[in-house]
Amino acid sequence: MTPNQAMPPKLPIPGVKFLIAVGSGKGGVGKTTVAVNLAVGLAALGYKTGLMDADVYGPNVPLMMGINRTPVAHGERIQPLEQYGVRLMSMGFLSPGDKPLVWRGPMLHSVVQQFLRGVDWGELDYLIIDLPPGTGDVALSLIQTAPITGAIVVTTPSDVSLEDARKAIHMFHQVKVPILGVVENMSWLSCPHCHERIDVFSYGGGRRTAEEMGVHFLAELPLDPEVRVGGDTGKPIVLRKGQGEPFLDLARNASARAAEEGAREGPKIEISD
Amino acid sequence: MTPNQAMPPKLPIPGVKFLIAVGSGKGGVGKTTVAVNLAVGLAALGYKTGLMDADVYGPNVPLMMGINRTPVAHGERIQPLEQYGVRLMSMGFLSPGDKPLVWRGPMLHSVVQQFLRGVDWGELDYLIIDLPPGTGDVALSLIQTAPITGAIVVTTPSDVSLEDARKAIHMFHQVKVPILGVVENMSWLSCPHCHERIDVFSYGGGRRTAEEMGVHFLAELPLDPEVRVGGDTGKPIVLRKGQGEPFLDLARNASARAAEEGAREGPKIEISD
Repeated sequence: MTPNQAMPPKLPIPGVKFLIAVGSGKGGVGKTTVAVNLAVGLAALGYKTGLMDADVYGPNVPLMMGINRTPVAHGERIQPLEQYGVRLMSMGFLSPGDKPLVWRGPMLHSVVQQFLRGVDWGELDYLIIDLPPGTGDVALSLIQTAPITGAIVVTTPSDVSLEDARKAIHMFHQVKVPILGVVENMSWLSCPHCHERIDVFSYGGGRRTAEEMGVHFLAELPLDPEVRVGGDTGKPIVLRKGQGEPFLDLARNASARAAEEGAREGPKIEISD
Repeated sequence: MTPNQAMPPKLPIPGVKFLIAVGSGKGGVGKTTVAVNLAVGLAALGYKTGLMDADVYGPNVPLMMGINRTPVAHGERIQPLEQYGVRLMSMGFLSPGDKPLVWRGPMLHSVVQQFLRGVDWGELDYLIIDLPPGTGDVALSLIQTAPITGAIVVTTPSDVSLEDARKAIHMFHQVKVPILGVVENMSWLSCPHCHERIDVFSYGGGRRTAEEMGVHFLAELPLDPEVRVGGDTGKPIVLRKGQGEPFLDLARNASARAAEEGAREGPKIEISD
C-alpha cells in the first residue's frame, strides 16, 4: 500500500476466483431473479459457483432457490447450503419466517462481512453477490470492502428505473468497481393468448443507458410470467429447456466480461522479499 | 406520559389532520406510483393534500409528478413545491441529477425529520409519506417518530412480493402503526392487442394476505402500460378520464379508513392542569 490509497485493501477471499456483484438502483426490477438465474446458469455451464444473498432486508434467495434450512457451523466457519449445484448463504436462512429484520446499519455490516469471509465457500470460479437494491449503507459498505471483479446493474426499461440505474452505475464508478454490464429485465412480454409483443415497461432504455454511460450491455430478458412462476416455486427458469436460453446467454456474457476485468486487474497481492 | 411508555411521544404536525404512510416490503412494486396517484387523487377529490417523498435513496416523486426545482426557504421553513394541487417535498429536489446519495443512516434521519417538521406544509387534510421500500433504518425511524394515522402496504400478487409485504405489515404492527389496508398493484394486464387478461405476476395474493393477517384490503390496481407512461412523463394516471377510476376509488377508500383510524386514536395531546 502507498499513502495515496485512502481505502483499506480489499483482501481477496481465499479460493474464490471471480466475485460478481448484482445490483440495481431500484428494487423490484428483478435483481434477485437475475442473480439466481445467473448463478444457476453458471453452475449449469460447469463452473463452481456460490451465491451470497446480501439483500438483508428482503432476502428472496431462499424462496427463489427453493431451499430454506438453518446452516451449520464447522469450527468457526458456516457451511453454505447447496441447491442446483450452487453454494448458498442468505439472511433468510437465519431469520424466522415473516418477521422483519429491524436491525440497524452497523449490525448488518458485520453480518454481511460474516457472509463474505466467515462462510466456508471452498474453491469457487464465481461467487455471485445479490446486493440490496439502491445505493444505501449495506450496499456501499460491501462494495467498498469486497474484492469485486465487477458489477452487473439490473434495470427495467422504464424511465423511473433507468434514472435509478444511472445512480447505481455512478456509485460503482465512485468506488472504482468495474461495471461488467447492464441487464435490461422485463424488456417485453409476449401475450400468452395472441402472442403479440407488449412493451409493458417500455423497451430499449437499458441498452441506450449503457451506451450513454460507456458501459457494456449484457442482456435483455423477457417479462415472462414463467420467470415469476420459477421464482415463486423455487425452480429457476434457466434450468427449463427452451425457456432458459436468454439466461444462459447472460451467464456466458457475464463470465466473459468477468474474465476480461479479472485479467485487467492483475494479481491482487504481491509478496516482496 | 406515563413511565410505561418506552417511546418518545409522537408530536403532532401542526395543521396536518391525517398522516398516511405508503410502504412496501419490496421495492419496484409501485409504492411511489400508488403514493403519487393517491395524493393527486385526494387533491382531485377536493382535499388539501401534501406528499412527502421519504424514499431518500431513490426519490422518484419529482419524475412522476413532472416537477423538479429547488425549493426556497422563508425564514427557517422550507416552502414545498406544488403540482396538480399537491404540496411536495423530495430529496430529488435537493440532490443533483444522476448522482447517487451516499449519505449514511444518521444524516438521512435528520433530513427526513426536516422534511416532516421543517417544511411549511400549511393546513392539510392529508399528508402522504412515500416511505423507502423495505424495513430499513430510514423507514423504521420515520414510523417511530411521526404521528402516522395509518399505513398502506403496497404489494404485487407474486409470492416473493407478498413474503416481503407480510414483513412490512409485521413491522407496522410492532411499532403500533395502524394498517389502513393492503393494495395489490400490477394485479393483471389487459393485452392491448387482443384484450385478453394476463396475470403477469399472478393474482389475488394481496387480498388473501390481507385476510390472513386481519387487515383491510383497499384496492387492486391493473398493470397498465399507461400507468407507467403516466409515471415516466410526470402525468399521474389518476387525472386521466376513463383510466383514473381505480386510483380515485383507492383515494376514497384510503380517506374513509384514515377517518376511522383517526377517530379511534382520539386527541393526541391532553393538557392537564
